[in-house]
Amino acid sequence: MLLTLQRIPAFSTTVFCRCSAEFLQRHCSRMLSKKVRVSDALSGKETGSNIRIQGWVRSVRPQKDNLFLHVNDGSSLKPLQVVASSHLNTRDLTFGCAVDITGTLEKSINKRQNVELHAQHIKVVGECNPVDFPFKIKERHSLEYVRQFPHLRCRTNAFSSLLRIRSEATTAIQSFFRDNGYVQIHTPVITSNDCEGAGELFQVEPAGHKNDSDDPNPHFFSVPAYLTVSAQLHLEVMAGAFSAVYTFGPTFRAENSQSRRHLAEFYMVEAEIAFTESLDDLMKVMEDLFKAATEHVLSCCAEDVELFHKYIAPGNRDQVDLMLKRKFNVISYTEAIDILKSSSQNFTFSTEWGCDLQTEHEKFLVKHCGNVPVFVINYPYELKPFYARDNQDQPNHTAAAVDLLVPGVGELCGGSLREERLELLSQRLSIFVIDRYLQLREFGSVPHGGFGMGFERYLQCILGLHNIKDVIPFARFSHSCLL
Amino acid sequence: MLLTLQRIPAFSTTVFCRCSAEFLQRHCSRMLSKKVRVSDALSGKETGSNIRIQGWVRSVRPQKDNLFLHVNDGSSLKPLQVVASSHLNTRDLTFGCAVDITGTLEKSINKRQNVELHAQHIKVVGECNPVDFPFKIKERHSLEYVRQFPHLRCRTNAFSSLLRIRSEATTAIQSFFRDNGYVQIHTPVITSNDCEGAGELFQVEPAGHKNDSDDPNPHFFSVPAYLTVSAQLHLEVMAGAFSAVYTFGPTFRAENSQSRRHLAEFYMVEAEIAFTESLDDLMKVMEDLFKAATEHVLSCCAEDVELFHKYIAPGNRDQVDLMLKRKFNVISYTEAIDILKSSSQNFTFSTEWGCDLQTEHEKFLVKHCGNVPVFVINYPYELKPFYARDNQDQPNHTAAAVDLLVPGVGELCGGSLREERLELLSQRLSIFVIDRYLQLREFGSVPHGGFGMGFERYLQCILGLHNIKDVIPFARFSHSCLL
Repeated sequence: MLLTLQRIPAFSTTVFCRCSAEFLQRHCSRMLSKKVRVSDALSGKETGSNIRIQGWVRSVRPQKDNLFLHVNDGSSLKPLQVVASSHLNTRDLTFGCAVDITGTLEKSINKRQNVELHAQHIKVVGECNPVDFPFKIKERHSLEYVRQFPHLRCRTNAFSSLLRIRSEATTAIQSFFRDNGYVQIHTPVITSNDCEGAGELFQVEPAGHKNDSDDPNPHFFSVPAYLTVSAQLHLEVMAGAFSAVYTFGPTFRAENSQSRRHLAEFYMVEAEIAFTESLDDLMKVMEDLFKAATEHVLSCCAEDVELFHKYIAPGNRDQVDLMLKRKFNVISYTEAIDILKSSSQNFTFSTEWGCDLQTEHEKFLVKHCGNVPVFVINYPYELKPFYARDNQDQPNHTAAAVDLLVPGVGELCGGSLREERLELLSQRLSIFVIDRYLQLREFGSVPHGGFGMGFERYLQCILGLHNIKDVIPFARFSHSCLL
Repeated sequence: MLLTLQRIPAFSTTVFCRCSAEFLQRHCSRMLSKKVRVSDALSGKETGSNIRIQGWVRSVRPQKDNLFLHVNDGSSLKPLQVVASSHLNTRDLTFGCAVDITGTLEKSINKRQNVELHAQHIKVVGECNPVDFPFKIKERHSLEYVRQFPHLRCRTNAFSSLLRIRSEATTAIQSFFRDNGYVQIHTPVITSNDCEGAGELFQVEPAGHKNDSDDPNPHFFSVPAYLTVSAQLHLEVMAGAFSAVYTFGPTFRAENSQSRRHLAEFYMVEAEIAFTESLDDLMKVMEDLFKAATEHVLSCCAEDVELFHKYIAPGNRDQVDLMLKRKFNVISYTEAIDILKSSSQNFTFSTEWGCDLQTEHEKFLVKHCGNVPVFVINYPYELKPFYARDNQDQPNHTAAAVDLLVPGVGELCGGSLREERLELLSQRLSIFVIDRYLQLREFGSVPHGGFGMGFERYLQCILGLHNIKDVIPFARFSHSCLL
């Protein structure tokens, strides 16, 4: 239950003297009633008279003597059934309007719901013209259709379920790390380093700023500043003090793509762990994280998840159960290449040793592993960024990097052991000098590693959603920044 | 305990054949020892032989027969005492180096610690030259001094305590909202709206982008895009579906200031609540949030908090206890002006009705209220942004806005009821048309309100820290974006 009004506002004396009898009556009636959220009403936690429900009307069924409403306040997928005498019906009581209802919460005689509210008072707080409202009663709108209304789509069943799941998945991820002794670090969005060295950066300057090359100090931060593409360097700093750290926040790519796989702003979970001994340490964390978060979501958001698995991605529930039950596979990059080469499938991209794995390859490998997630380890050294740890092997020179591939999505996580050896790192960093980054290796350097998990891809994977724009509250991509 | 290595990496057959006897022995010895974090060792949860501790050396005291070390791994402020035979001492065992130690964890005979590790093996994993390392053994460095080393300051006691507190405060805030039925929304960092209309925006374009006025579509997002100054508009959208929502994330101001009060990137907690009835609803949430988060931090980070209250801000603990014990004050803006006018203090800024309250005024008002936080409500209508709800009063025309002022900081929270009445809002929005924002008032509009709390200011308030740069992992301000 939320925000019970149990105290009269602390008015100053002058204001209080002006209070009318009507005002006092309204406040007293409020003090007698108890605000209850729909989820609490449905759970049976609250019963009795003088219960107050506030929300939005999802259906109106006037019958001869009685009026039936479904009211939803966003606390659960299921609405609360409200029963009222027909004389409480009014013209403005329509699909989509906001209502404030007081009545008695009782066990329902109808088997379709546990409880129902027998209304004494119904007040329409905000009208909603059903002709103009883009969503129609009892119609199941496609995800594509509702995407056009970023300010209203949270009022559809599917997207409100998605956002409740997203909120719980966030909690689950944070609990996982906290329970395992990680310190959460708020790594900066604005940074002067280009962690991946891969381009596609957004640059930041005050609005109205003119990039004047004659100006000796043309930048707000004195140096060019970008939106982060990875918190890794900042987390490496922190892992050198806390042993185990993580961050969970927005990450950016200025990728000129409107595909269903890309966003300009998306969420990443990134972890960094000191005193690692092998990639196994990282793989254990990734697998445990995936399984713990998913089990939490399935148990805390059962109804919301069921909506997706029943109506939008049939079969995905079995897929999720399989992932939870089975141990994730581990294959080397070299084995992956062998598997791809010996397959009968015609791939668009090359499968020669030394080529990067593309989405088509990743999806094939997951299928090949029986639709159980698979870690691919030890990638060609030349494919990986400067910080990946050199395996110093031959003839195939590899780096201690790992990707986790999952059904439906392909790459979900990417990580590596980091090069902690100053002499090896400084050789490779000649074109990418970061003094402070090197200094971390001078003062009590330790073997360490870390990984990042795309949070939207995680949600897509467990819910079976094909378009990344359907799993984020407000999607940003090239040519689109609504609201 | 973190990351116990209990499984041999899943090597492919080819690799496994190449394993040396040395490799197997190393793995077996690891399997026999148990990795334990310092905090778990100190708590007495773990005792016995074959305990493995990994961390950084905080002190080295060689004595005739024995060597005493303090080892810290970031899991707690207190280090673990390690006792070893003198022959385990080596030249590279210095302040700041990283070590991996195996031994027996026993009750200590010394009263200064509960337990100590009797080391059998000490391995220096990463050396640290004490001459070059900017922090010196047993020296208490000033906050100003350590601020120069953004990549190393997390290895000082004060800053590592700060970051553990920051992590726990984040947990506390998120738990508070979750326990009270709020849905967490990841509101976007990149936005096309200027919520406050106050300028000081950062603009975003891909790096290398030329602002070419001849280009018919010069923007990546087709429209100018900025870094968010407030998530309010996005939260209003969501409150219209979930009733109660919040966000917790980075917020930006391109303020050309290097003062101890301002950052270009800082964290805000913002909440939005539907079906509000008065400012009282908001004030209750703010006060409950402040008290719940603070109580959590005091109980979960007692040692870390004590460091600040003992060495950096003496007296602040009493201040915090007072804030927790007492009910927060409520005064109107008009009363605040009367208090300021009748005071004997000479203020730099005007105290006429209609002028905004400045930090000097805010601090005076908090003192006037006995150093208990004070809500100031009902500000002049003209001072507040377009979305603040019109109180439609006279002769002093006010808006239903509220600020929470706290000791040491001044304004900690700012909020308001939002104008939910379409006709009033659309009159005021003439110069600031946001179609979708107005549409929210067309379809089931409800009275609602919300507030934001500056997270760094919150930490400053409870810890008694004067400079905002000392409470954020990586500070960004004009002319400074290190790392």
